[in-house]
Amino acid sequence: MRRAEHLLFAVAAAFVSLTPAPLDSQADVLPSWNDGPARRAIVEFVGRVTLNGSPEFVPVSERIAVFDNDGTLWAEKPVPFQVMFALDRIKALAPSHPDWSNKEPFASAMTRDLAGVAATGERGVLEIMTATHTGMTTDEFSAIVREWITSARHPQTKRLYTEMVYQPMLELLGYLRANGFKTFIVSGGGVEFIRPWAERVYGIPPEQVIGSSGKLTLESRDGRPVLVKLAEIDLFDDKEGKPVGIHSRIGRRPIAAFGNSDGDLQMLQWTMAGLGARFALFVHHDDAEREFAYDRHDKLQRFSVGWDEALARGWTVVSMRKDWKTIF
Amino acid sequence: MRRAEHLLFAVAAAFVSLTPAPLDSQADVLPSWNDGPARRAIVEFVGRVTLNGSPEFVPVSERIAVFDNDGTLWAEKPVPFQVMFALDRIKALAPSHPDWSNKEPFASAMTRDLAGVAATGERGVLEIMTATHTGMTTDEFSAIVREWITSARHPQTKRLYTEMVYQPMLELLGYLRANGFKTFIVSGGGVEFIRPWAERVYGIPPEQVIGSSGKLTLESRDGRPVLVKLAEIDLFDDKEGKPVGIHSRIGRRPIAAFGNSDGDLQMLQWTMAGLGARFALFVHHDDAEREFAYDRHDKLQRFSVGWDEALARGWTVVSMRKDWKTIF
Repeated sequence: MRRAEHLLFAVAAAFVSLTPAPLDSQADVLPSWNDGPARRAIVEFVGRVTLNGSPEFVPVSERIAVFDNDGTLWAEKPVPFQVMFALDRIKALAPSHPDWSNKEPFASAMTRDLAGVAATGERGVLEIMTATHTGMTTDEFSAIVREWITSARHPQTKRLYTEMVYQPMLELLGYLRANGFKTFIVSGGGVEFIRPWAERVYGIPPEQVIGSSGKLTLESRDGRPVLVKLAEIDLFDDKEGKPVGIHSRIGRRPIAAFGNSDGDLQMLQWTMAGLGARFALFVHHDDAEREFAYDRHDKLQRFSVGWDEALARGWTVVSMRKDWKTIF
Repeated sequence: MRRAEHLLFAVAAAFVSLTPAPLDSQADVLPSWNDGPARRAIVEFVGRVTLNGSPEFVPVSERIAVFDNDGTLWAEKPVPFQVMFALDRIKALAPSHPDWSNKEPFASAMTRDLAGVAATGERGVLEIMTATHTGMTTDEFSAIVREWITSARHPQTKRLYTEMVYQPMLELLGYLRANGFKTFIVSGGGVEFIRPWAERVYGIPPEQVIGSSGKLTLESRDGRPVLVKLAEIDLFDDKEGKPVGIHSRIGRRPIAAFGNSDGDLQMLQWTMAGLGARFALFVHHDDAEREFAYDRHDKLQRFSVGWDEALARGWTVVSMRKDWKTIF
């Protein structure tokens, strides 16, 4: 080929690779997924809604997919990682609070005694959240999270928490985006805790992260406006709060939803109640060897109702043990 | 050329046309804008932040632009159009409320007596908003707005309200998007009032519309989940509420902001307080002949502080009379 043709060919190749086109079950799609019913259901659904002329075709603007975070995109044991963040922050802040060493829930928090913290009940948890998540500007909090997420390590695996993100779900996010979907996180966890690293880790920009949040107030410091995080809840983005968060932030109903616990049930029901093709997926943590095994027998009781509904409705269930070649 | 080369050439041409490339002051950019300081400031700013290698280059993901709606993207006289919507709804609902004809603020609302409604004060306005904007599902409200926006007409111009959208601002939205910007509406008006038509009229999808909103509650009707609009404010997205709305929904600071009243001041200040290249624009309604003329002398007093700040800071001011060839 001549030089100009070479160039054209390269440009054309680049273009083709950028075009969101329906990808079918070719080998390089979802490589960490075994060829089982879960993977097939995903590929089949994406094929149906992206095939031009298909009766179930969905225009790109309506291809909204929502993902729970804890237990769906990354691990959540022994406790959701934001709790570990809060305990680490209590420890870091302790030198300025000498009274904490004799005062619950702080004394338990400083020694990472989860049972001790739990024993202080909802009030204790709220005190820890207030001490670690409020009273600073949004920029200050974001900087603290960025520092923690790149240095703190999981107590059991000793990995960075972002190394406990599920590889098959990263592939799924990319696969959906390559097919014109806009991917959102809809988490019971804090929106300000997830946003600082979600774009780097998941490819999900801040404006596509919805999560629990506190109220904010605008103040002026040194003549510059800042937003200060208040100790008052704005959105509790769990259970009934998830459809509320989705509607208030996105303003249209997703066509696909991915979760793993009772906290995700209403989000999946809300998604499935729309017209046209729909997809709901439940991640089943049944791999004690490579990750953790827990479901309806979990002592937190967060896995019974959603699980029953998933089975009753015939939603797609992922067995981490059987469906995923790789986990992390 | 051979057939394959033809194809490649067509593909390459399509690719090139899709690439967001900096557009400069060529004739077909912003055609409804006169070649004055406002248009030049816009084109110069976009050139600086999109030029690869420029010290002020901003990556695509950070190119967030926020627009006020009333008075910035469409007209707002004699009152913001959502108020006309509320009055029209009162009239439509009146047959089911025979007591309204003798009861304020409804009696005034039914005859479109704005002064009469205003005389009932904040409590009266709240009663009208509650009667017209709450107590139904989000889907029901959306259907009502869709019907109204395609049929109701402005009392003076007799046009559809969407025909009172500013043509130069539509071109500006398109120009920014062609240069990799993500465009958001950040309105003191209701998010549920704007979303049903913003994509069709402005090219702005629901998830990029932020506005005032009421609380929602999830209920089950005939076995299906619905969200019901409650008579309780969730976000008042005006003045100090705009930076709060921007941060809670977008999660990063815009680099460009467009407004026209004191309600937009904090949004413009918040935008300009960030690091790197920034752009703030204030629309000045000084064209009594083609639109309306009002500013700091407006009886609502909503145009003095923002206006002074715009002049003091040297923000770009658009004179609708001088800068816009066409208005609608």
